Amino acid sequence: MDITSFAPILGIGGLAVVAFIYRRIAGLPDGNERMRHIAGLIHNGAMTYLRRQYLIIAIFVAVVATLLALFINWQTSIAYISGGMLSMLAGYVGMQGATKANVRTAEAARSSKPGMARALGVAFFGGSIMGLSVASLGLVGVGVFFIIFGEPETASVISGFAMGASSIALFARVGGGIFTKSADVGADLVGKVEAGIPEDDPRNPGVIADNVGDNVGDVAGLGADIFESYVGAIIASIALGATVASGAALEELGTRAQLMSYPVILVMAGLVASLAGVFSMGFLRRYDPASALRFSTFIATGAFLALGYWATIIAGCGIGCYWAVVAGCLCGSAIGLITEYFTSAGQVRKIATASLTGAGTNIITGIAVGLESTVLPVIAICAAILISDYVAGIYGIGIAAVGMLATTGIIMSVDAYGPIADNAGGISEMSGLGKDVRDITDSLDSLGNTTAAIGKGFAIGSAALTALALFAAYGQAISLKTGVVFDLSLTDPIVVTGLLLGGIIPFFIGALTMTSVGKAAFKMVNEIRRQFKEIPGLLEGRPGAEPDVDKCVDISTRAALTEMILPGTLAVASPVLVGFVLGPLALGGMLAGATVTGVLLAIFMANAGGAWDNAKKYIEQGNLGGKGSEAHKAAVVGDTVGDPFKDTSGPAMNILIKLMSIVALIIAPLLV
Amino acid sequence: MDITSFAPILGIGGLAVVAFIYRRIAGLPDGNERMRHIAGLIHNGAMTYLRRQYLIIAIFVAVVATLLALFINWQTSIAYISGGMLSMLAGYVGMQGATKANVRTAEAARSSKPGMARALGVAFFGGSIMGLSVASLGLVGVGVFFIIFGEPETASVISGFAMGASSIALFARVGGGIFTKSADVGADLVGKVEAGIPEDDPRNPGVIADNVGDNVGDVAGLGADIFESYVGAIIASIALGATVASGAALEELGTRAQLMSYPVILVMAGLVASLAGVFSMGFLRRYDPASALRFSTFIATGAFLALGYWATIIAGCGIGCYWAVVAGCLCGSAIGLITEYFTSAGQVRKIATASLTGAGTNIITGIAVGLESTVLPVIAICAAILISDYVAGIYGIGIAAVGMLATTGIIMSVDAYGPIADNAGGISEMSGLGKDVRDITDSLDSLGNTTAAIGKGFAIGSAALTALALFAAYGQAISLKTGVVFDLSLTDPIVVTGLLLGGIIPFFIGALTMTSVGKAAFKMVNEIRRQFKEIPGLLEGRPGAEPDVDKCVDISTRAALTEMILPGTLAVASPVLVGFVLGPLALGGMLAGATVTGVLLAIFMANAGGAWDNAKKYIEQGNLGGKGSEAHKAAVVGDTVGDPFKDTSGPAMNILIKLMSIVALIIAPLLV
Repeated sequence: MDITSFAPILGIGGLAVVAFIYRRIAGLPDGNERMRHIAGLIHNGAMTYLRRQYLIIAIFVAVVATLLALFINWQTSIAYISGGMLSMLAGYVGMQGATKANVRTAEAARSSKPGMARALGVAFFGGSIMGLSVASLGLVGVGVFFIIFGEPETASVISGFAMGASSIALFARVGGGIFTKSADVGADLVGKVEAGIPEDDPRNPGVIADNVGDNVGDVAGLGADIFESYVGAIIASIALGATVASGAALEELGTRAQLMSYPVILVMAGLVASLAGVFSMGFLRRYDPASALRFSTFIATGAFLALGYWATIIAGCGIGCYWAVVAGCLCGSAIGLITEYFTSAGQVRKIATASLTGAGTNIITGIAVGLESTVLPVIAICAAILISDYVAGIYGIGIAAVGMLATTGIIMSVDAYGPIADNAGGISEMSGLGKDVRDITDSLDSLGNTTAAIGKGFAIGSAALTALALFAAYGQAISLKTGVVFDLSLTDPIVVTGLLLGGIIPFFIGALTMTSVGKAAFKMVNEIRRQFKEIPGLLEGRPGAEPDVDKCVDISTRAALTEMILPGTLAVASPVLVGFVLGPLALGGMLAGATVTGVLLAIFMANAGGAWDNAKKYIEQGNLGGKGSEAHKAAVVGDTVGDPFKDTSGPAMNILIKLMSIVALIIAPLLV
Repeated sequence: MDITSFAPILGIGGLAVVAFIYRRIAGLPDGNERMRHIAGLIHNGAMTYLRRQYLIIAIFVAVVATLLALFINWQTSIAYISGGMLSMLAGYVGMQGATKANVRTAEAARSSKPGMARALGVAFFGGSIMGLSVASLGLVGVGVFFIIFGEPETASVISGFAMGASSIALFARVGGGIFTKSADVGADLVGKVEAGIPEDDPRNPGVIADNVGDNVGDVAGLGADIFESYVGAIIASIALGATVASGAALEELGTRAQLMSYPVILVMAGLVASLAGVFSMGFLRRYDPASALRFSTFIATGAFLALGYWATIIAGCGIGCYWAVVAGCLCGSAIGLITEYFTSAGQVRKIATASLTGAGTNIITGIAVGLESTVLPVIAICAAILISDYVAGIYGIGIAAVGMLATTGIIMSVDAYGPIADNAGGISEMSGLGKDVRDITDSLDSLGNTTAAIGKGFAIGSAALTALALFAAYGQAISLKTGVVFDLSLTDPIVVTGLLLGGIIPFFIGALTMTSVGKAAFKMVNEIRRQFKEIPGLLEGRPGAEPDVDKCVDISTRAALTEMILPGTLAVASPVLVGFVLGPLALGGMLAGATVTGVLLAIFMANAGGAWDNAKKYIEQGNLGGKGSEAHKAAVVGDTVGDPFKDTSGPAMNILIKLMSIVALIIAPLLV
């Protein structure tokens, strides 16, 4: 019996750990009545949104599944539905965990001495519910389909699973992104800028929506994003293992069956390593939070590199495969470090200083920093491509992506920790807990900005490699079907046409999502202004004058659900349209074009957004005039622009390029 | 004797017309003493800058020419120097004309009744000095080299001419762009925003620098840009004619000699058509300025389409070639119209309305409009590629670019009219001419914004087609050298690596140029603030309190000259580096990647910038609160960001992608 047969069992083991952690968290004290009330509002808002979002997605999934059953086969259709459902399940479980952990983090900061260690522990383990759910459910799903369809002739069915995950991811990311940023921008513009009240002030009708947004955008949205990167990378590698032209070079690496099993075995090793990293926090939380989070990731990465070597032996693959894993792993870490550099210290001070001459120069400088920050990550990605291709051919590019994502369990735990800490801060402020508590949650939250930036770097890097692996698999699928090598030559005008058309898709999706946030924020601003004017005593904080928070949650919910449909549909429809109208060559060019501009825009937007945010924080710490100064006002403008950059439009790119590639891979047999 | 032998003679004829127009303009009255004084300051500032810029460029040209002589051959080196020198000459002549015409336009508006028609005439004919110089000098240069090297075996030498023109263009565009925007942003931020004095107020120490900038950026910079597009398109078509693989399809179009002559004959027709368009203004200026400018372009385009058909017959080429010309011509017009749409009415009102909720939403909306505006122009370019490839193969893509640019004489005249009208407005304001005069120059100036946007659309569209034609020529050159078809397949990881690396170059150049403007504007702001504080009575307008305008001109000059070196060198060095380190396949991918992201960024930046500018103007016309309102302040921030977008970073992209392609074409024989 093959070791890959144990993949679903290991995944179920991971889910048992999730259940254990969830019960432990749920059993912790959840504060006083006011805290419970606010946490309840956030929880209900998030769950209501999630249910309504899933309802709309279900319709979309049903339509696509029907089309797949009609035009491809019913097995792919089932795989598609399964991928979608497991992604939604991961999002649902993760959100439950996060909305339990937020108030308990605040309570831990309030009631324990020293509060920092306990609060860190609660937030981190709360995040690990999402992190481990993603990794475990991904392994269960891919594992089951691999057991059934893991032969070269049938492996194309498994791609349906990745497409299901991608569809959910795009809607969840775009919808969640629009929700969180319309609420955030709206609440800030009226609350902080016009009315001059602090962030998360309970008088502001938009703050509950803002906190709900952290959950639906940064927890559920991010989870769906990483879930699909994770399964996408595994499935691209399986597809490449099943289809790459055999030859001397390939035979050195292993048999076709070995190459198909290898990515599954690798992620099994990755899940074990992630569990080790997560549990090391039980000990590490005694140290300062930054070091604790960094060391838990180091432990998991180190364990994975050791286990990965062993996995390579077990799988019977050539050592070249292992080097591709290492290349991917190092590339991910390099992008993380570069991202950290461009969203901290020197670059941030540059933007903060430019704020002294106004919002205009703040924006110019932030855009320049964002544009420049694309250079090194792309060079890192190129290095990973060249190395992994050198050691293991095109197959190696898929494996590098798997190497980068195998430790998703821990990466995602660290990442989901951020919004929980952010929420804990919001609950503390709204419940009027003391400055001591707020100091703890603030320092946990500011750390969350850095972990979020690093997480985004990972998401982008892995998306680029996964998209390229899927793109290579698409080329192989076309070759296999036609029996001749697929000559996707850039000297062919139809390929260049596809390249240019692909290039515009990320720009267009960027435009749509930015516009959506702008429109929704505009509505939110007007609603908050209205409440401040019409509810007597609200702005003065008179007791009994309560804001109508549900109205604001509803505005964000409606905006998100309406506005996510066009970008989501466009991403699925555009490769189908180009493929059938202009042919497989144009579609190949299109995937390459979309990948290039998508990766660049994603990095640009994520880093510019992060840098603007931190420049504002830097001034708020009392530099260059501090809060309320002209420089601060300019920096708030930059942060406002950066919000949809980093949390709506930018992240949408990662999913977009993978979704387009996976759609192309699935329709490939119909195009020739 | 071949008709192409007359190309230089026709070019010299064009120059004679230029001399005639120049003498007529110089003979017009140049106003009162104050006007002459201010015009003198602008003229001297511009000429001083141009001399210093040319000195630095000369060093760069000498270095590159030496390398070309050593590694390619001395003929290419001579061609390179000639291309550079003619470009500089065109810039010099155009600037002389523009800085004579600006004050005479103001004087015409002041002294004639009705002033509008005469002022329009002076500004337009002033612009035609640049427009016809570019077209005529280009024809002389290309014509002479074609006579000497117009055989398939030697035609590669002519590429050196295009590379010379490209080198100058990049420096002139980047340097001019940094000059004009640092002065503009600096003068506006302190003058309009902080001190609350009108634009072009003589008290503002930065206004002379701002007006100098209009000349060095929008006249000399744009002229060099179009000069190189023009010769680049012709030369790419000659190179394709000389190298495309022969075959049945090719033979239907004509012999190799015919295909090589055809682009030269086309631009001869284009110059004649442009002259007809220019002289039609003598009659048309009686109508309203917008119609007059539009009709003069229509006349030239119509004449060119008629003459182009005749040229196709003369050249003996197949009718397919003519359809490629038509496709290019229509594509250029389509991009112009799309550009007009995205920088006027509906889109502009959207941005203006978003300004009501602050600078943040203004920027978000502007960015969304800019991103969205990339979609249709790129589809137009794709249509032109597919049509011209269908009717005339890869050669057709070059011919489409020539078709778009053959009427450069008139396009550039209309375009150079804008900064002259702008300067005339500046001189009127600074000389204290009455409101009547200012009204005339204002309406001429606001029209200049639209013509500039359309001109930018042409520049981008033609750059895309020219870059693709040069890219195809590069592929042919490699094939020719190796004797096998150059297989630039996107399924090859090294090609994909090149594609990604190419994609980052426009982002990086964008970052460098944005940073340069930001830094220089920062210095300018501090200098203007200093003068307002330290020169007694300046801000109050006390007689005798004169600003130190030279200091501000000097800041812009130094910044422009220092900051243009790195982007310019990078653009030349990066293809050489990638070509020699990673090989011709990676370099091919790089050109494609740079073209995709370069075109998209160029359109995005040009249109976002234009839309922000017009949104500000829309509010200044009294809408949404008018001048001084909060919405206006927000719109000024958008305009500030848009300035380097549309006049520095965006235009640099056009030249960048052509320069990289031409460098690749020239070093191609060394790479295999």
